[in-house]
Amino acid sequence: MWDVASDQAIADEDRVLARESCCSAYHRAIELIGKRWTGAIVFVLLDGPLRFSEVKVLVPDLSDRLLSERMKELEAEGIVERRVIDDTPVRVEYLLTAKGEALEPAVRALKRWANAWL
Amino acid sequence: MWDVASDQAIADEDRVLARESCCSAYHRAIELIGKRWTGAIVFVLLDGPLRFSEVKVLVPDLSDRLLSERMKELEAEGIVERRVIDDTPVRVEYLLTAKGEALEPAVRALKRWANAWL
Repeated sequence: MWDVASDQAIADEDRVLARESCCSAYHRAIELIGKRWTGAIVFVLLDGPLRFSEVKVLVPDLSDRLLSERMKELEAEGIVERRVIDDTPVRVEYLLTAKGEALEPAVRALKRWANAWL
Repeated sequence: MWDVASDQAIADEDRVLARESCCSAYHRAIELIGKRWTGAIVFVLLDGPLRFSEVKVLVPDLSDRLLSERMKELEAEGIVERRVIDDTPVRVEYLLTAKGEALEPAVRALKRWANAWL
């Protein structure tokens, strides 16, 4: 005699196990980019290098202290590069690395969603 | 006589003002999806409805209390719908709304980035 209830339980379990679970790399990506201001900083750098003061113009309400902290984190993650330009006076620019530029499809897709739904 | 320094300052300002600034809707989207576990829950629901216990299988290390809290937030945002199925016993499933399904391109793009770079 079949045990219908446990057959159903096994079928349910199979249904779930056949699906893709979540996924430490994605989870880490979300937490990295989802951190307050980080996503905004990456967004404004997609169009090219910026100086510190320029990032501040393009990301309103971001304090010097937090921007500096986030830039250091993004450098440590290999997403942003700090470039010193030997000019008079010396200039410092921030730009996305290849790893940072690779975020463009995700950032643009999230922007489209935000514009459509929020 | 030209004031070269201030010309440069004006050119710099123009360069920044011509660029797209960031952008309250995107900022809100990032903070919504970037909240701890939220992105993971949306990810596992992309493949179809799940019961509470099934989400827990697919998102390891997520506690009942936090999953319940996040589901309520996602319902309040109109991203997840809680559906009661009149069966014996009654079943409850969670599924993405149209607004939630519209997140798919952003979530998939971020997943690809995570797999490639993290």
